[in-house]
Amino acid sequence: MSATFELDARLAGDTVVVGDLPLCRVLLMRDQRFAWLVLVPRHAGLVEVADLAEADRAALWREVDQAGAALRTVAPCDKLNIGALGNIVRQLHVHVVARVEGDAAWPGPVWGSGKAEPYADIEGMAERMRRALVLG
Amino acid sequence: MSATFELDARLAGDTVVVGDLPLCRVLLMRDQRFAWLVLVPRHAGLVEVADLAEADRAALWREVDQAGAALRTVAPCDKLNIGALGNIVRQLHVHVVARVEGDAAWPGPVWGSGKAEPYADIEGMAERMRRALVLG
Repeated sequence: MSATFELDARLAGDTVVVGDLPLCRVLLMRDQRFAWLVLVPRHAGLVEVADLAEADRAALWREVDQAGAALRTVAPCDKLNIGALGNIVRQLHVHVVARVEGDAAWPGPVWGSGKAEPYADIEGMAERMRRALVLG
Repeated sequence: MSATFELDARLAGDTVVVGDLPLCRVLLMRDQRFAWLVLVPRHAGLVEVADLAEADRAALWREVDQAGAALRTVAPCDKLNIGALGNIVRQLHVHVVARVEGDAAWPGPVWGSGKAEPYADIEGMAERMRRALVLG
């Protein structure tokens, strides 16, 4: 793609950057209620998963698996939730969330559920995620 | 896997069967508010996407793409939503939902949003989905 990748302003505001996997920028949501990563393929103009070329689509889902494994390392959980919604932010992004029985949204989805709670030390959490993703 | 695949009772009750793709049973949600398919890999004992062997994982996401394309044919939409949650029903399943601006849950997620509304003719809708998926 010719245009330059630029992270959506709302995604940027809601997250801190963990690092870059081969395809995606990995973001950590500023919400200590959930261990919650967001993966954003670094191409301009993507909205749907189907907008990715086939090889990139495969890379996206591999990186979602990596994110899930890293989350499990850092934040043991009962269930991973994976979601590509994009109803509000149209830039293609995939949520990977470590869910724990009884968490703030359990058993409902995290999206649109209550108010984000800031981390006391989000950089510490981002660093743990970075190490788990071997991005350190 | 040795155990026989059996569809979770709650998934079975909430849906009608559209048909089988190579990996997944394709279900249509009994909720006329949203054009909404659910894909269930036909192996026993799966909970997380990561429980699938690598080739099946690739097949799952290809079939999710197919489901999205079929939904777009039958029910033009503004955004596809893809979700693998499984907080309530643990059997691995992936939701693919055609979202329209202003629909009953817009812009929130469909999961846990309001009460399902029955179709007048769900078999007609299942047949349209079957044709769009070339399962007819």
